[in-house]
Amino acid sequence: MGIDLALLERRLDELYAIGAEPDGGTYRPLYDAVWATAVERVERWLKDAGLKTRRDAVGNLWGRAEGTDKGKSIVTGSHIDTVRHGGRLDGALGIVAGLTAVQALLKEKGKPRRPLEVVAICEEEGSRFPTNFWGSRAIVGAIDTADTAMAAAMRERGLDPARIASAARDDIDTFVELHIEQGAVLEASGTPLAVVSAIVGTAHLEVTVTGRPDHAGTTPMDLRLDALTGAAAMVQAIESIAKSLGKPAVATVGKLQVEPDQINVVPGKVVFSVDLRHSDPGGRRALEERMRSLCATISQERRLRLTIRTLQEKPPVALHPDVRAVLARAARECGVQAPEMVSGAGHDAQILAARCKVGMLFVPSIGGRSHCPEEATSPEQLQLGTTVLATALELLAY
Amino acid sequence: MGIDLALLERRLDELYAIGAEPDGGTYRPLYDAVWATAVERVERWLKDAGLKTRRDAVGNLWGRAEGTDKGKSIVTGSHIDTVRHGGRLDGALGIVAGLTAVQALLKEKGKPRRPLEVVAICEEEGSRFPTNFWGSRAIVGAIDTADTAMAAAMRERGLDPARIASAARDDIDTFVELHIEQGAVLEASGTPLAVVSAIVGTAHLEVTVTGRPDHAGTTPMDLRLDALTGAAAMVQAIESIAKSLGKPAVATVGKLQVEPDQINVVPGKVVFSVDLRHSDPGGRRALEERMRSLCATISQERRLRLTIRTLQEKPPVALHPDVRAVLARAARECGVQAPEMVSGAGHDAQILAARCKVGMLFVPSIGGRSHCPEEATSPEQLQLGTTVLATALELLAY
Repeated sequence: MGIDLALLERRLDELYAIGAEPDGGTYRPLYDAVWATAVERVERWLKDAGLKTRRDAVGNLWGRAEGTDKGKSIVTGSHIDTVRHGGRLDGALGIVAGLTAVQALLKEKGKPRRPLEVVAICEEEGSRFPTNFWGSRAIVGAIDTADTAMAAAMRERGLDPARIASAARDDIDTFVELHIEQGAVLEASGTPLAVVSAIVGTAHLEVTVTGRPDHAGTTPMDLRLDALTGAAAMVQAIESIAKSLGKPAVATVGKLQVEPDQINVVPGKVVFSVDLRHSDPGGRRALEERMRSLCATISQERRLRLTIRTLQEKPPVALHPDVRAVLARAARECGVQAPEMVSGAGHDAQILAARCKVGMLFVPSIGGRSHCPEEATSPEQLQLGTTVLATALELLAY
Repeated sequence: MGIDLALLERRLDELYAIGAEPDGGTYRPLYDAVWATAVERVERWLKDAGLKTRRDAVGNLWGRAEGTDKGKSIVTGSHIDTVRHGGRLDGALGIVAGLTAVQALLKEKGKPRRPLEVVAICEEEGSRFPTNFWGSRAIVGAIDTADTAMAAAMRERGLDPARIASAARDDIDTFVELHIEQGAVLEASGTPLAVVSAIVGTAHLEVTVTGRPDHAGTTPMDLRLDALTGAAAMVQAIESIAKSLGKPAVATVGKLQVEPDQINVVPGKVVFSVDLRHSDPGGRRALEERMRSLCATISQERRLRLTIRTLQEKPPVALHPDVRAVLARAARECGVQAPEMVSGAGHDAQILAARCKVGMLFVPSIGGRSHCPEEATSPEQLQLGTTVLATALELLAY
């Protein structure tokens, strides 16, 4: 498949420039003016490629090539919003590569057998409002209302919040997405491409450890109820549990706050976050159970009070075996072995999996960097990923 | 010695009311209007007791009874400023008990042999300006200028900043102070009174641990440079070192900040404080050396960058053996054994020790609480402490 790398890179540059921030990176928050500019730009590209475009009720942009057969669609694409100081590839690559692949297919192979679509999903990142997966949740019919602020922002873009439910689709057969890994696993192993086997389940917990604030000079070590030394033991334990369970288990304490946070006062209270991820529901549960049990033991030993609150829980999603097989075959046809790997980050695919078969391809992230201006993938790997995506779309739609 | 407990308690109440805060506790910052009111109140009490009063160049208030002999003075007292939401006893007790004791002595024993003085030291707590021990440092001749803000505040109280050096005294023989323990050691052991053997030396350090911020989902445990798990290991190690060195070593991590402090990002940087105290210079050094060495080992093992900065260093001060002996004898004469203990908090006595013999008595703090509205000592112990102080002053000045 002849993928025009120069065109691909140019389009990525153009999108990256829309929302460019003075201090680096780009920011395209949902329904913002720069977001609208980006959607318009992609719409022009879709039309240039000969696709029939439409926007649904939440602002997802679709470009469609009809198939010779009726029936459900083969869809590719990604999200168009970005985090603050976002990079050039997260989301953008899935849209631009999907479009470039479909454009190449239409040119080289003509009209597909099945309807073939490219989608620019309006939002995935939680880029502006306290929500995320807004676009994909609309596609699977999981939402039908917006809060006041979102509704106002939708109206500013000419979208009617009362029509959200109409964005739902049940005529998608398969969704495939090319995305950057956002980690350093592929780079570390010298692998240029991977097929995603599953997207991890995530639990976000908030742990509160309560002891007693005391004078740091006048309170002997044995009379203290130090919330921070207790929390430190828990942070250590949480790391050990993830390590001992082995890959793909990860556990992270990312936020931690101390009270009263004074140099000469023994900490009376510590609140910290725990992010637990595993691709397997049993593994995710085991991580959490061991973590809860070890934290309880530590707090008992140290006579501290412990409360653990679940902030969010997302089950792992296994990507569809048929699509994974197609992606692996496409890679082989392009001359590479694409091993399977688990995605540690969330993606629209995990939402869309509720309504259609989904598959994902990962290309390496240089230095594992993502969500920052340094986000990059080598030109060769961008070309390889897009070529394998096009090949898979051909296998699925032709 | 007949100590008027009712008068003592009434004076403590009166002082506590000056600077009372609506949300609890009292606040008498140096050179503030409520501070001036408190100084005036104490001055009236000193005069009522027949003492000749004067204020020195920094606003320390002195009340003096001449002795039949000339020579150096025996001085008692404490500081009149308080922290925010301060309690009823810290500083105030030393002034009020000293005054009450001297008043009883003058009444029962007449004119002393040596000059006998009560001092209300203007500042000890760092209550308003970024300095502390302001009053006692003036007395020992350690300061001679004030910065612009302090100088302005001094002028507002009619004090001339150009005259600071004139507050220095070299005619004090002995300074004795009754203070609350501010910890729970005496209460835990059922001891009503203690003689302070030494005031701990303190080192304040700032430790910076630098790793690499990474995505919490896409970065396997073995590819992380997590600054927080490293810092947690150090917090644990610092606690262990203090415990293994044994009393009176204490080590506290009171402040800790994580960057970027996001639930789904592996911490890239942690900055934490360390407060190390020991009554013995060798012990203090051992604490710090072991701490530095263990932190270095942990950072090397985890491939983290480590920097340790000394913010402040105060050597331990041994209180004068002659004064300790007098205080112990006074306690015995009052029918109690007063064991010796180390003060974990700093006191004016550690500054005054540079120019005169110093000694301190501790009464228990209920629940170990201090620097808060709950700060309290039982009436019996207040009476005992004041009686022993009076007895000691008699031994020293009569």
